[in-house]
Amino acid sequence: MFMRIDHIGIACNDLEEKIALFSELFELEVVAREVNEEQGVKEAMLRIADADGGGSYIQLLEPLSPDSPVGKFLAKRGEGVHHVAFGVPDVAEAMSKIGDKGVRLLDERPRHGSMDSKIAFLHPKDVGGMLTELVQAAKS
Amino acid sequence: MFMRIDHIGIACNDLEEKIALFSELFELEVVAREVNEEQGVKEAMLRIADADGGGSYIQLLEPLSPDSPVGKFLAKRGEGVHHVAFGVPDVAEAMSKIGDKGVRLLDERPRHGSMDSKIAFLHPKDVGGMLTELVQAAKS
Repeated sequence: MFMRIDHIGIACNDLEEKIALFSELFELEVVAREVNEEQGVKEAMLRIADADGGGSYIQLLEPLSPDSPVGKFLAKRGEGVHHVAFGVPDVAEAMSKIGDKGVRLLDERPRHGSMDSKIAFLHPKDVGGMLTELVQAAKS
Repeated sequence: MFMRIDHIGIACNDLEEKIALFSELFELEVVAREVNEEQGVKEAMLRIADADGGGSYIQLLEPLSPDSPVGKFLAKRGEGVHHVAFGVPDVAEAMSKIGDKGVRLLDERPRHGSMDSKIAFLHPKDVGGMLTELVQAAKS
């Protein structure tokens, strides 16, 4: 079901500052930047590895407002790992399989993710306390 | 410097329960179990992907005692993501490069990690709030 660890989503207060830090420390290249109004974030993807079917990234997330999900996370927990995303071949199929096992899906249907991927989130309480994202990468 | 996301380390109260959950939900195979007295944990590695130079895993961690680092994490934060590990070709070289950039290393020299890897931890406050592990996989 899982093909790769697609990305680690890290919540931060200042996107530009953290892009500079991570790219400098770990010699990572920024391959995408976008604003996702629906999720209330501006974000950047730093590439770790490429592979057929999708790569692996560090995703840096700055909230667009304090009352967005990432804004609330920062207020409660501070900067750090917000979620973990796993690559799947077909996100709708994975949602169906996992939902059938009793895991609560936070999305009724796949929505738009970074770099034209299709994504869905699983309830952290049903997955060992980890906010879990499923990612179907865009066809290259 | 980074070749892959090596693993997500997830702190849990009951290793056997969480092995059953993760392997069932996500169709993952347990490829290693071990007790690491030095780190105060018993753990299991669930394989997500294989690759030259090292694979990608979910690592489940149960503390051996409440006063171990993972025990204290659980008491403070509850179950969830404890750390993130990135694969490097040579952990001593990566420690040196990253240490020279001002990041505090939590280990003076590489120590023993899962599946005979060599590992070192970086101070989370210097890496955007993420407890970060460097992993040099054992030669296969």
